[in-house]
Amino acid sequence: MTENTPLKVALLGSGIVGSQVLRLLTAQADELAARIGRPLELIGVAVLDPETPRPGYEHITFTSDAAALVAAGPDIVIELMGGIEPAGSLIRSAIEGGASVVTANKALLGAQSSQLFEAADRQGVDLYFEAAVAGAIPIIRGLRESLVGDEITTVMGIVNGTTNFILDKMTRDGTTFADALAQAQAAGFAEANPTADVEGRDAANKAAILASLAFHSPVTADQVYCEGITDLTPQDIAAAAEASCVVKLLAVCEILPSGAISVRVHPAMVPVEHPLAGVHGPDNAVFVLSNQAGRLMFLGPGAGGVPTASAVIGDVVAVARNRVHGVAGPGQMIDEIRPVAPIGEAMTRYHLRFQVVDAPGVLATVAKVFADHQVSVANVRQTRSSILDDHSPWSAELHLQTHTASEADQQACVADLIASSVVGGPPRVLRLEGVQ
Amino acid sequence: MTENTPLKVALLGSGIVGSQVLRLLTAQADELAARIGRPLELIGVAVLDPETPRPGYEHITFTSDAAALVAAGPDIVIELMGGIEPAGSLIRSAIEGGASVVTANKALLGAQSSQLFEAADRQGVDLYFEAAVAGAIPIIRGLRESLVGDEITTVMGIVNGTTNFILDKMTRDGTTFADALAQAQAAGFAEANPTADVEGRDAANKAAILASLAFHSPVTADQVYCEGITDLTPQDIAAAAEASCVVKLLAVCEILPSGAISVRVHPAMVPVEHPLAGVHGPDNAVFVLSNQAGRLMFLGPGAGGVPTASAVIGDVVAVARNRVHGVAGPGQMIDEIRPVAPIGEAMTRYHLRFQVVDAPGVLATVAKVFADHQVSVANVRQTRSSILDDHSPWSAELHLQTHTASEADQQACVADLIASSVVGGPPRVLRLEGVQ
Repeated sequence: MTENTPLKVALLGSGIVGSQVLRLLTAQADELAARIGRPLELIGVAVLDPETPRPGYEHITFTSDAAALVAAGPDIVIELMGGIEPAGSLIRSAIEGGASVVTANKALLGAQSSQLFEAADRQGVDLYFEAAVAGAIPIIRGLRESLVGDEITTVMGIVNGTTNFILDKMTRDGTTFADALAQAQAAGFAEANPTADVEGRDAANKAAILASLAFHSPVTADQVYCEGITDLTPQDIAAAAEASCVVKLLAVCEILPSGAISVRVHPAMVPVEHPLAGVHGPDNAVFVLSNQAGRLMFLGPGAGGVPTASAVIGDVVAVARNRVHGVAGPGQMIDEIRPVAPIGEAMTRYHLRFQVVDAPGVLATVAKVFADHQVSVANVRQTRSSILDDHSPWSAELHLQTHTASEADQQACVADLIASSVVGGPPRVLRLEGVQ
Repeated sequence: MTENTPLKVALLGSGIVGSQVLRLLTAQADELAARIGRPLELIGVAVLDPETPRPGYEHITFTSDAAALVAAGPDIVIELMGGIEPAGSLIRSAIEGGASVVTANKALLGAQSSQLFEAADRQGVDLYFEAAVAGAIPIIRGLRESLVGDEITTVMGIVNGTTNFILDKMTRDGTTFADALAQAQAAGFAEANPTADVEGRDAANKAAILASLAFHSPVTADQVYCEGITDLTPQDIAAAAEASCVVKLLAVCEILPSGAISVRVHPAMVPVEHPLAGVHGPDNAVFVLSNQAGRLMFLGPGAGGVPTASAVIGDVVAVARNRVHGVAGPGQMIDEIRPVAPIGEAMTRYHLRFQVVDAPGVLATVAKVFADHQVSVANVRQTRSSILDDHSPWSAELHLQTHTASEADQQACVADLIASSVVGGPPRVLRLEGVQ
């Protein structure tokens, strides 16, 4: 093959991201060829509706037969269909056929990343997926390459733009979840069916990918403990603000003292001075703690066709350059098997709000509950109850913040509080992350 | 050469960063070998004082003859001596001898990056320098690789930790520059001679490197317009706070509408909601605007031996992997020659404070000055003068914010204001960056 033999590219999918990738591959063909060292030849685009007229792309082959396109011997397959099947089978076929793969498929990687990494390693081809987590933010490259000589202890991210938009609205305007969601939908930042976003399942896929990469150990989305934001109230946001915090939906990946991985998605209070607290609107950000590099944060647009396509094209250039040189990029190095800990073993701080009777000895009773479970109380503040009922016995409200404790111990405290005669109703618990 | 032939590494310098690199190369030798695919063999460390006892490193060769070490045929030269000479000659010798080079030398790259990039390209070797800008933050890799398919329009960074520590102190505690500097020195965040930091020359080196990479065009530090922070007062910080801004020392690299590059280092007001406003203490952050990826920001520790060494080791792994595969990484692609514009052509917003007489018609007079130079006024606010002298004719103070204008037009306005009978003394001007 001479210097000018094109690299054959198959594009699977032409939706919001795929159509932008198609545009960039076409419009920037010369620049890409210069950067890669050989031109790219788009051998076809797999779409649902090949007959739809696509003005400006008359010279491109559109087909509904994705499998045939993958079987036609492309050098690079760009998979932007999403979903687990048929995307997974197509990617496996591509890898087995010797193609390198670029994908943005978080659901597939969240379910099967380690198997796919292994398949790519075995074949000596590349599997790149910068766009699968946090859009255009180069967090995958950061974890795979820049921090390769380091030991990562924590990855904590805002990896879902829809929920960040909603929480940012609730924080700035004091609106309810339902109103903020409606505004997000009106602004195009939430889908008509927002379930996967607001229940945290989208973030759980990304948490699994981040944990696998950061800790070199297989983690799947079904191992990720997951709470969404649908039951957050303006009172939660206000209580956070009183504690100089904002509420964010976080994906948290940590190595526990036991060596096990804690990986979870849940709303959490974050101190306003923490870099993640300043992530507004639909932006994403990923915060990484490592032994050598210290605290790093990457911020940027978490979604959108153009930014995500930019990440895909960056991967295509890297993969194509590797191919031109006959090498594969750094593999995923899934070389440890760490257990994923149940949520009860997760360690963090907690902020609890609950109604109490306003009488002598109540604080002592409450304090004893925490002491009984070895949970250390960092601070406690009593306010008037937010229940506006003069006949309620629960005339005061306690805002109590713990030091680091296990989820199991926290839950045991909550159970004892509920059983206590001085506490009215179940405490409202928010985890508190990012305290230094 | 078999799989196990070691790659020979020469380390030049063993100061704050070099000693940490030495530690990591030794302590993590096995992990590095696994990640690279071949072991690294440290053939020697060039130091000023080879006879100093170095417990734990008795098996390492220390020498004062850096040139001989480079001439001994290493595969990789790690240059951490700093300064332009002899570092520059040693790096050129290394490249000409076929070695790949990893360096953290911002002064050298700020002066000669394009010549060094060309030399490396010509020899087909790598020249990596992640640690030269913003310590462990992977901004160089981001610009060279992740954004390779994109068009960058602006890079704006806090790239000097000392000055950020000082400005953060002044903002939080209302202290003077001198007091904040003394605290920075006491905390180990400023050197005994802080001139290069506080006068912006350190940041100017980094601005030149960032501009060269972002715009693929040669920029040297002596082309960077540079103002330091030594004359900033608590009044400047307070005026910024009144405008919901903080003051940061920024390195700004932009493409002007003319196609020329504007590259400058100066203190600037940044809106509190801008991600750069939330960068505290000695942290660094680099904000990148591009056509496809949109707004990205990278944040982390800007200095310190361990984080910087982590960035060096990341580069060593990348360079070594390339060498194992017989390839070079993506080159620097200095493939355009854009002019660097004089500061008069820079375009930004401005915040001006000046004393005026408190009389009818003053605002009209002031407004006419700006109108005469086609500078659009965004808002203006009159307060009592901060000059506490009952006999002063300047009993009022104007805080005036412009829309985007050229530096030359702003300076013409300032000259006219000084000449005007209604204005007392020269206006205080701060540039205003990061407004959306």
